[in-house]
Amino acid sequence: MNQISEVTEQIVDRKLSAVAKRTKASIIREMLKSTSIPGLISFGGGVPDPETFPREHLAEIAKEIVEQEYKTTLQYGTTEGDKQLKQQYIQYLRKYEGIEGLEEDHMVITSGSQQALDLIGRTFLDTQSICAICDPVYLGAASAFMIHAPKFIKLTMQDDGPDVDILERSLQKMTEDEKEQFKFFYLVSNFDNPTGICLSLEKRIRILEIAAAHKILIVEDDPYGLLRFEGEKIPSIYKLAVERGLQDYVLLLNTFSKILSPGLRMGIVVGNQKIVRKLVLGKQVADLCTSPLLQRMTARYLERHDPIVHLQNALKVYAKKRDTMMASFKEDFGNIEGVHWTYPQGGLFSWMCFPDWVDTMEMLEFAKKNLLIYIPGEAFSVGDSNKNCMRLSFCLPSEEQIREGSKRLLKAFQQYAFMKGR
Amino acid sequence: MNQISEVTEQIVDRKLSAVAKRTKASIIREMLKSTSIPGLISFGGGVPDPETFPREHLAEIAKEIVEQEYKTTLQYGTTEGDKQLKQQYIQYLRKYEGIEGLEEDHMVITSGSQQALDLIGRTFLDTQSICAICDPVYLGAASAFMIHAPKFIKLTMQDDGPDVDILERSLQKMTEDEKEQFKFFYLVSNFDNPTGICLSLEKRIRILEIAAAHKILIVEDDPYGLLRFEGEKIPSIYKLAVERGLQDYVLLLNTFSKILSPGLRMGIVVGNQKIVRKLVLGKQVADLCTSPLLQRMTARYLERHDPIVHLQNALKVYAKKRDTMMASFKEDFGNIEGVHWTYPQGGLFSWMCFPDWVDTMEMLEFAKKNLLIYIPGEAFSVGDSNKNCMRLSFCLPSEEQIREGSKRLLKAFQQYAFMKGR
Repeated sequence: MNQISEVTEQIVDRKLSAVAKRTKASIIREMLKSTSIPGLISFGGGVPDPETFPREHLAEIAKEIVEQEYKTTLQYGTTEGDKQLKQQYIQYLRKYEGIEGLEEDHMVITSGSQQALDLIGRTFLDTQSICAICDPVYLGAASAFMIHAPKFIKLTMQDDGPDVDILERSLQKMTEDEKEQFKFFYLVSNFDNPTGICLSLEKRIRILEIAAAHKILIVEDDPYGLLRFEGEKIPSIYKLAVERGLQDYVLLLNTFSKILSPGLRMGIVVGNQKIVRKLVLGKQVADLCTSPLLQRMTARYLERHDPIVHLQNALKVYAKKRDTMMASFKEDFGNIEGVHWTYPQGGLFSWMCFPDWVDTMEMLEFAKKNLLIYIPGEAFSVGDSNKNCMRLSFCLPSEEQIREGSKRLLKAFQQYAFMKGR
Repeated sequence: MNQISEVTEQIVDRKLSAVAKRTKASIIREMLKSTSIPGLISFGGGVPDPETFPREHLAEIAKEIVEQEYKTTLQYGTTEGDKQLKQQYIQYLRKYEGIEGLEEDHMVITSGSQQALDLIGRTFLDTQSICAICDPVYLGAASAFMIHAPKFIKLTMQDDGPDVDILERSLQKMTEDEKEQFKFFYLVSNFDNPTGICLSLEKRIRILEIAAAHKILIVEDDPYGLLRFEGEKIPSIYKLAVERGLQDYVLLLNTFSKILSPGLRMGIVVGNQKIVRKLVLGKQVADLCTSPLLQRMTARYLERHDPIVHLQNALKVYAKKRDTMMASFKEDFGNIEGVHWTYPQGGLFSWMCFPDWVDTMEMLEFAKKNLLIYIPGEAFSVGDSNKNCMRLSFCLPSEEQIREGSKRLLKAFQQYAFMKGR
C-alpha cells in the first residue's frame, strides 16, 4: 500500500497537465449519481423523459442498418460525418429553420454537443484568449472553455437574453492586441440552460450587428429550439445571419439529444467551411469519428419520420408540467419577498433566485433532507456569481411530484432561513 | 466574397489556439478518402474486413436493447461507463488475459481507443513535458501527444520491440526537474502499428523494471493482442505488472474495434483508480459519456457470445493473407539489396524498409500510377525518420490482390529508382 500511494503521488498528483489541473468534476453529473434515493424528487437533471423516445422506430432501424448496411455502420467512418445524415440535416434545417444554401462541408457531426463545445474550446482558446459568455452560463460549455483558462467577459442575463451592451462596450474598449485575442461569444439562443430564457429577435439582430462591426465569431448553441410550447418561433441567429450574408460570423450547434434521444450522442456544428475544417482536424485527434451506426440510425429516422410530429405529445406533457411548476411556485413562493423565477416558453428549465443572503449550495443540504434536489446556481458560473439562484427542471418529475417538490423547496428554504436567523 | 475571405482571415487564420495550430491532418485518414478509384489495390487502411463482423448477432441485440432497455440505452449515461460492460470486460480480461482483481473503478469506457489516447495526452502533457514513444510510432497516438508539443524520447524499433536501453539511459541522465516532467512511455505491445512487431517477454519485464525503478507510467496499447495467428501468447505488460504488484505503473488500453467492430467506437482504459478518475474528469468535458446504446450492445454481445470463437474464421483468413504477402514479397523483393520487411505473427501490418535514398512519400506517386497505395513511413514519425519505410496492411485486399499489389509495388519501386538515376 505504501508503494501504491507513492505511485499515486508520483504519477497522479505531481504529473498532471495544466489542463487536467483545471478540470473539475461537474456538479450536475456528480449529483445525478445520487438520484436513486427512494422518494427523492429531482428538479436536477435536464434529461428528457425516456417515454418520449421513439423506441420502436429506432429499434427497427437499428436492426435493419446493422444487418444490411454493416459495411458502413460497423466500420470506421469519416471524421467529417455520414453524408446521409448531413443530407437529412440540410433538409431538416431547410424545413424547420428556413435555412437555405447549406452544403456538406458546412457541417461536422460530433459525439453530442459537448464534443462540439470541447472542439471549439480546443480550436480557439489559450490562456491569453478572451471570450464572452452569459452569466449564468451552460456549465458544459463553461467547463469546455475554462480548462483553457481564458479571460471571460460575462454578460448578465436579462428577461430577453444577455445584456449585449456589456459585450459592445468591452469590444469598444479593447486594444488591437486584445481584439486579436477575443475569440467568440457563446450563448444558448432558445430556452437557455439554465435560465429558460429565449433570446428576443431584437437582441439576435443586435448581436449580429456587433459581430459584423467587430468581426467576431458567435457560437449559437440551440439544443432546445424545437421544444417550444407557445409563442411564435424566432429565427435562429444563424438564419438571420444567412439572410444578411453574415453567416461566416456564426457557428450553429445542434443536437438530437433533446428531440430524439441523448443515447445517440448526436451533435452537429454548422458554419464557415474553414472553421468546420479546423474542427474536423481537432475531432480526428479526439476520437477519429462518431459511430457510423448511430449516425446512420439518426439519418434513417429523419428520412422516415418527422421528429416534430413525434415531439408533439412530449411537448404537451412538458408544457403541462411547466404550467404545474409555475402554478406551484406562485402558490408557494408568490408572497415571499425577493424570490422570483423565470417563465420559460419552452425547453426544460426555470431559474429561481432568492435574496442575496441565500446560498443555494448550503441550502441544498436542507433540500436533500426534505428529499428534493435542484442544481445550485454557482454550478453555472465561471466565478462565484449566482450563489442565490438555482436551476429547476420540470421535464422528468410527474405533475404530482412537481407540486410536492415545490412544497419541499419552500420547507427547505424556511428551515435554511431559520438556521440563518432570518 | 471579399467579406468572407476577410472573416476567414480574421477568425480562422489569426485566432487559432496553439493546439489547433499544431493539429495536422492525418495522412492516413486523408489518403483513405481516395481509395474508391476503380482497380486500386490498397495496402493502406488498417481496417478489419467487414465480413468478419458478427452482424446478425449485433443486429438482434441492437433491436432488443433499444426496445426493452430504452430507459438506459437511449438516455444519457455516466461518464465512467456502463456497469454491465465493465463487468463483462472484467470477466473477459480474466478469461483471455488471466488478469484478476479488477473492479469497476479501475476502468473507464472511451469512444474508441483514440479518445483514450487523447484523454491521456490532455491529462498529462504540456509543452514542457517529456514522454517516450517508439520510432516508428502509431500515428493516432503521436497526433494526440504532439498537439501538446512535449519533448519526445524516441526508442528505435528492434525485432523484439523498442530499444529500451534508450529509455533507461535517458532516465538515468535526467535531472530531478526533467524526471518530474517525464510523463509516460507509450507503446503497442502486440503486433505493433505500424511495424507488426510483437514485444518479447524479456523486454516486457525489463520495461516494468525500469518503470518501477524510475517510477514512471507505462501506457500499453493493445488493440491487436487477440489477432494472433501463430506462436504462444505473451502476457500483457499489465498482467505481468499485476503479478509483481506493480499495476499502478501501467495503463492498459483496449478496444473492440479489431475483434468486434470499429463502428461501435468502443475503447477501454484499465489502471490505477486515481488516474482513471482523472481521465473520467477529462471525458466529462470531452463528450459527457460514450453512447449507452453502443456500450450495452458490446456488453450483451460479450455476455452471449465468445468473441474469440467468432474470431477464428477471421484469423484464418488474415493468416493466409499474411502468408500470401510474405511469399509475394520474397518472390518480388527477395533479391533486391537493402529491402527488408517484418514478419508479423498477428495483427494487420507488415513494415517494409528500402535503402536510405528512397523517400516513400515521393515513391507513392509512382505507386498510385500503378494503382497501388500504402502508408509512407514518415506518417509514423514525430520527426522526419522512417522516410525510407512504409506500412503495408494485408487485412482488406484479397490474396490475388496482395500478389498483384506486391508486383505493382516492385514496379513502382523500379520506376522510382530509374527516376532517381539508380
